[in-house]
Amino acid sequence: MPTRSREIQLAARPHGEPKESDFRLVEVEVPDPGPGEILIRNTWMSVDPYMRGRMSDRKSYVPPFAVGAPLEGGAVGEVVASESEDRQVGDTVTHQLGWREYVVMPAAHTRKVDVDGISPSAHLGVLGMPGLTAYAGLLDVGGLKDGDVVFVSGAAGAVGSLVGQLAKLRGHTVIGSAGSAAKVAHLLDDLGFDAAFNYKDGPVADALAAAAPDGIDLFFDNVGGEHLEAAIGALNDHGRVALCGAISGYNATEPPPGPTNMFLIVGKRLTLRGFIVRDHATRRPDMVAEVVPALRDGRITFRETVVEGLENAPAAFRGLLRGENTGKMVVKIG
Amino acid sequence: MPTRSREIQLAARPHGEPKESDFRLVEVEVPDPGPGEILIRNTWMSVDPYMRGRMSDRKSYVPPFAVGAPLEGGAVGEVVASESEDRQVGDTVTHQLGWREYVVMPAAHTRKVDVDGISPSAHLGVLGMPGLTAYAGLLDVGGLKDGDVVFVSGAAGAVGSLVGQLAKLRGHTVIGSAGSAAKVAHLLDDLGFDAAFNYKDGPVADALAAAAPDGIDLFFDNVGGEHLEAAIGALNDHGRVALCGAISGYNATEPPPGPTNMFLIVGKRLTLRGFIVRDHATRRPDMVAEVVPALRDGRITFRETVVEGLENAPAAFRGLLRGENTGKMVVKIG
Repeated sequence: MPTRSREIQLAARPHGEPKESDFRLVEVEVPDPGPGEILIRNTWMSVDPYMRGRMSDRKSYVPPFAVGAPLEGGAVGEVVASESEDRQVGDTVTHQLGWREYVVMPAAHTRKVDVDGISPSAHLGVLGMPGLTAYAGLLDVGGLKDGDVVFVSGAAGAVGSLVGQLAKLRGHTVIGSAGSAAKVAHLLDDLGFDAAFNYKDGPVADALAAAAPDGIDLFFDNVGGEHLEAAIGALNDHGRVALCGAISGYNATEPPPGPTNMFLIVGKRLTLRGFIVRDHATRRPDMVAEVVPALRDGRITFRETVVEGLENAPAAFRGLLRGENTGKMVVKIG
Repeated sequence: MPTRSREIQLAARPHGEPKESDFRLVEVEVPDPGPGEILIRNTWMSVDPYMRGRMSDRKSYVPPFAVGAPLEGGAVGEVVASESEDRQVGDTVTHQLGWREYVVMPAAHTRKVDVDGISPSAHLGVLGMPGLTAYAGLLDVGGLKDGDVVFVSGAAGAVGSLVGQLAKLRGHTVIGSAGSAAKVAHLLDDLGFDAAFNYKDGPVADALAAAAPDGIDLFFDNVGGEHLEAAIGALNDHGRVALCGAISGYNATEPPPGPTNMFLIVGKRLTLRGFIVRDHATRRPDMVAEVVPALRDGRITFRETVVEGLENAPAAFRGLLRGENTGKMVVKIG
């Protein structure tokens, strides 16, 4: 018997900042699972900055969302019917078909996750895609090494807050930027950052120079734009940049200007390296092996900004792009 | 008995494009060599784009030239007096105190070079700093690997022309940009490039797209600015950029705008790496071992643009920044 479900579809491609009218809540019927498939009731879904890129009709590393089709993204759910020997009713799984209440999909496209003492939503954040992004970006792409002074932009976000904590656990000096005084206090008081500043208070270059008088060695960038230019200016010789994202430009309607100090990349022998997390899937076991024990004994903590109700997922996403989250922005469904 | 010599001093720091009045020809006395020193009569001197940076009063990887002091730079000369057991009168040496007719310096600060069948000036170009720059930049910084389509900007210059030939010898498809139809013909007809275009004929992005319909994998950049933006657009996934220089901006009086497509670095997982040749001195023997035999049997060729007379060195340097050279720009002294 088909299941009634609600889903969020892309109604129109956003121009600039997404509007409520770019999204549409639709009721649909979800079929029963076929052989090898499972029916999942989603309990949590993720909104992530990268989704903004998929809403535009632009060639990229993932195809754009289709107008009139449901959006996609990370989700956690409970198996409510199974035609697969690998998943039992009651199992908690993660998968990539969020933005909807129910979904039928091959069991093989899901991952069963441990929720013993771990909140299911953590698998969308610190133990999920953002967690792996932070881990691989800092260690493999950024090549963190002894003595590095680390700067992370968007440091109070899902990725940035773990980057900072992973670096602190390794004994590094860590500087973070965020977009409010409350977030800055969170970085300093809760996450143990050595220095942090509100990038809205003045030029990023000035704040960074004050926070890092001897310069920085590794920049983990989630923001782009002015942050990247300031970091290129502050990086020491042989410094490295892990380019994870550039949220400052995601709603731009004109190409944002690039750093005006690119010439410094030569003289300082800097390396800038872009990455996307799916190239680093083999590092997931290493990340889990470090982060799970650290979560259990409190050496790593995380915050979530929880929005209730599938119908509010577009508002959550819009708020994410405005920086309304501290830590991971998640939507609780049903 | 002191030797009368002429030298070029920096008379004023250039603002924008250097003027003749920023340089001054001065007659000085050069003392006799002391213990361990040699007196050298310079026969050739180099003008190189990086010297423009040293004429500005800006913190960089080499200290700025001093106003009122002689300029410095690569030179080849003949030993005319020696107080060192390591150098004989008649030896040909290279050193870093060009822009003058005679110089006394410690023998240990010079390198004796082979001029058997090799023109002395080649040690300022294909076998000198530009040669090592091309070799290390292409192989080590750019990480040339099988199947790479290579794009080099300023391809008719001292560095670019060797980058292209080294890549061709390894079987790669090589595309070059240059600033005149004659240079483009030189790349295609003399150096074996697969494609080349005059960047003054239209947008670099359009010319590059036409020359590399399947994109590029490695960009060796001597020019910066529009070239870098076009290359970021044309690079395939996991592409690499060896940032050697950015001559397009060396005379800029305002910070040149950066690439507006930096976001592509993330999605394509690009790596941009700046370098300076002095970090790669250990690769000199490898470069010499490859290039000398290739020069002797004609698999590598090089051009020089020769300006006669020390007094014309400022004009040579100014012409270099305007792209008036094909191959290495050198000044013949005395």
